[in-house]
Amino acid sequence: MKEKEFIQIIKSTLNSPYIGDDCAYLKDLGIVISQDSLVEDIHFKKEFITPYQLGYKTVMVNVSDICASGAVPEYITISLSLPKDTDNGFIEDFYKGVKDAAKNVQVAGGDITGSDKIYISAAIIGSVKGRKISSRKNAKSGYKIIVSGEHGNSAKGLELLFKKDSPHDGINNKFIKAHLMPEAQIEFSRKIAENIREDYAMMDTSDGLADALFQIAQASNCVMDIDTGKIPHDPVVDMRTVLYGGEDYQLVAAVPECLLQKISDYTIIGDIKEGSASVNFDGKRFTEPDSSLFNHFKE
Amino acid sequence: MKEKEFIQIIKSTLNSPYIGDDCAYLKDLGIVISQDSLVEDIHFKKEFITPYQLGYKTVMVNVSDICASGAVPEYITISLSLPKDTDNGFIEDFYKGVKDAAKNVQVAGGDITGSDKIYISAAIIGSVKGRKISSRKNAKSGYKIIVSGEHGNSAKGLELLFKKDSPHDGINNKFIKAHLMPEAQIEFSRKIAENIREDYAMMDTSDGLADALFQIAQASNCVMDIDTGKIPHDPVVDMRTVLYGGEDYQLVAAVPECLLQKISDYTIIGDIKEGSASVNFDGKRFTEPDSSLFNHFKE
Repeated sequence: MKEKEFIQIIKSTLNSPYIGDDCAYLKDLGIVISQDSLVEDIHFKKEFITPYQLGYKTVMVNVSDICASGAVPEYITISLSLPKDTDNGFIEDFYKGVKDAAKNVQVAGGDITGSDKIYISAAIIGSVKGRKISSRKNAKSGYKIIVSGEHGNSAKGLELLFKKDSPHDGINNKFIKAHLMPEAQIEFSRKIAENIREDYAMMDTSDGLADALFQIAQASNCVMDIDTGKIPHDPVVDMRTVLYGGEDYQLVAAVPECLLQKISDYTIIGDIKEGSASVNFDGKRFTEPDSSLFNHFKE
Repeated sequence: MKEKEFIQIIKSTLNSPYIGDDCAYLKDLGIVISQDSLVEDIHFKKEFITPYQLGYKTVMVNVSDICASGAVPEYITISLSLPKDTDNGFIEDFYKGVKDAAKNVQVAGGDITGSDKIYISAAIIGSVKGRKISSRKNAKSGYKIIVSGEHGNSAKGLELLFKKDSPHDGINNKFIKAHLMPEAQIEFSRKIAENIREDYAMMDTSDGLADALFQIAQASNCVMDIDTGKIPHDPVVDMRTVLYGGEDYQLVAAVPECLLQKISDYTIIGDIKEGSASVNFDGKRFTEPDSSLFNHFKE
């Protein structure tokens, strides 16, 4: 993947300690920061998503990064680059979606520029406020691997949107809603970050559950031992989609077992074991989320 | 201007107190934040600017926003959206430029996505650290209007770049350097924000000196009385370019006279007077930077 190659070049050029997690933890300021972009025809298609939904998703995608860190989402800035023919209605609907998704998060500026297609980039700040901040480097042998919610729903929704003739009831369809208007896992994050004393790893599943598991395994140099039968998912969604789907914005965390009695609404999908970086799916070892894993889950 | 119309819609949709200044001042966190974007063929052309210069300018444009607030530039995140054919060399050179411009500012993440054209959006955080933060609402009758540096150089540089047959020595040409590799006015900002006790107004001249003067006049509801003969500029740059040029990233501030003995390297270009929002250029009153002002400075 070219993106990962580019990130390696950036890391070696800058030698910055802040590149790696979903958020950068700025200890001296007591905040975390993250930035995420949504690009027309890469991340969304205008024919599938309304301006309101796009504003809503922009905020949720960024709030999700703060949730992955365990911090409290506080402020967001949004830069919009828009084609010349964009009308006032687009701006109004987009910001209604922003407002509804933001809830306790304050919109603190941004800018507007011209462009050929719609580019949206938002930066979000979370405050630490006594919470414990995660790092994907912090998974430890003996920890339990837990997840929020169902996995694969967003990708299933996108599939339905592309198959225009497949019957569905639009935004009322659970899969399409998961894709167009995802919900960041604010409560799941809060319960962990407020109750945990130990170092822990947490990521969102923006790039898919499998990707998150491998990222934690590699950053923590450990074995993620996964029982795929335990991963919560709708029965109509196949295991490939569950693992690779992406954009569910659920959370996956590696936490000490003693935490579990203090939290709720989680599912244990495996344990951390000692060993060189890998993910075991039902006992079979994989070192990266490549085609061998993808084909392993052929239906 | 459509951008200003859109900002009005955003303000009324969100009812946020944080939209107005170059930076949003988040008092509870002791920080300011700003976000600025650079879009290919809107803000730059690949044939005029190298990847190194683009990285450098991306940082400086954002640092300049923090300087306008008076805060200390601390952390920056950068989102890059890049065409598929972007090579490793682009990334390496871009981030070398970022690194050289950032100096004491830490790069704290961002993301990389695909796109048709190059789209760059950076968010920057400044810390307050006992400094007094500006607001364009804070100009008061009796204050002096001061500026840093020379005005119009960047626009002159762009003019030279467009006139391909005009003789110049590239980046060694003062005007072209001002356009491609502007310098944020960190010291000018620091001296004011560390020494001032009173409320004050400060802006950068990213959208031109005239625009900044009118923005302060309108936000503070005052008269900016300007002596154009005092505005520092190179003799080859005409007054239209001095006032409308943009992208100089100089600073303009309205400060009490008692501050002036504590700072240096500034030029007084006028005073604040009581009256409804307007800018007087050499005694002639204008209420907006429209064509009547533009034509007033016909050569």
